[in-house]
Amino acid sequence: MFITFEGPEGSGKSLQARRLADALRERGWPVVLTREPGGTPISDQIRQVILSPEHTAMTPEAEILLYSAARAQHVGQLVRPTLAAGQCVICDRFADSTLAYQGYGLGLDLDALRYITHFATGGLVPDLTVYLDCPVALGLERRRQAALRSGGEWNRLDRKPVEYHERVRRGYLDLVRADPDRWLVIDATASPDAVHTLVLTQVTTRLEGRWTL
Amino acid sequence: MFITFEGPEGSGKSLQARRLADALRERGWPVVLTREPGGTPISDQIRQVILSPEHTAMTPEAEILLYSAARAQHVGQLVRPTLAAGQCVICDRFADSTLAYQGYGLGLDLDALRYITHFATGGLVPDLTVYLDCPVALGLERRRQAALRSGGEWNRLDRKPVEYHERVRRGYLDLVRADPDRWLVIDATASPDAVHTLVLTQVTTRLEGRWTL
Repeated sequence: MFITFEGPEGSGKSLQARRLADALRERGWPVVLTREPGGTPISDQIRQVILSPEHTAMTPEAEILLYSAARAQHVGQLVRPTLAAGQCVICDRFADSTLAYQGYGLGLDLDALRYITHFATGGLVPDLTVYLDCPVALGLERRRQAALRSGGEWNRLDRKPVEYHERVRRGYLDLVRADPDRWLVIDATASPDAVHTLVLTQVTTRLEGRWTL
Repeated sequence: MFITFEGPEGSGKSLQARRLADALRERGWPVVLTREPGGTPISDQIRQVILSPEHTAMTPEAEILLYSAARAQHVGQLVRPTLAAGQCVICDRFADSTLAYQGYGLGLDLDALRYITHFATGGLVPDLTVYLDCPVALGLERRRQAALRSGGEWNRLDRKPVEYHERVRRGYLDLVRADPDRWLVIDATASPDAVHTLVLTQVTTRLEGRWTL
């Protein structure tokens, strides 16, 4: 089973993906936790190029193609082999991020993004996508606080204007509406424990259903 | 005017591109000499990811998307602004390399490559492409000798089997056949001086024709 986490900045994706992976492992499911952009050494190197705060001159087309390159490597080298070995893959961001951020956020042609994404993934689509929805202002404030606390990652994307992040959020909600069966929408303003419980219940129900089939 | 140089390994593209740029500058033409993958700081960083000998696990899809990302950045940041300023751009490799190497060489779908290339370049096509043709064995031997002499670049691509390079060469000849007016085919087994003279004569003829229009 291939599960992805999506959501605007500061929605808690990384934390929730990790907590879900831990909880499933405790219950005996074989799980590989990974993230995009990244997940393999080559993809991690591409991630550094994408997120470098120095790269303000990056064109939107170059950005998309870099994300897609990292994704192609990640899918080919890690995601597909892991799924083929019968393990569960949990991924922090996947192809929907490209549609939300570069399509809805930057205004690039959605059909072109879908074509390039299909090329990069070979048509792989998640079985379940957890969408952690939260208001932009709250998400950005969480990011800022986390960066202050820990010297954590505060990168080129976090510096975009609020309107950009609003378009991203609306984009996610459009994607959910177009394919509701694949998406699990969770209110990420709730406490991390509450969000985790909701996610875990839904995922184990689906995993057990799949196991018995 | 946008002039690109193409050809198999060891055909002398880089040398001939430089000599043409020098000769045109001597004659008073404003010329920017550049290369792919590379040409801008971001593209150069992507070039390092592509050509690293450590990256043997790179999938063909990731490779294409990286070349295309470097190209999108190069076109957006350097090639288009330079052409718009009325200067001549001479580029060592461009989009035809993707079709020849990844399409014909690696066997990837040519239509997909054309789509992605069009996305990366925004439809920019060279006014003239100089194709330096030479037998694969001769080209690879030149590369080997140059690497021995100077500790020069001997990268992941040079290590591919001879059959791959044969497919690349046949690919170039297919591309020439499909659009002969754009291509200038030169026998690169001739001496560098002879090749340079041929190239310069053809290019100045075309530049002067354009100048008087």
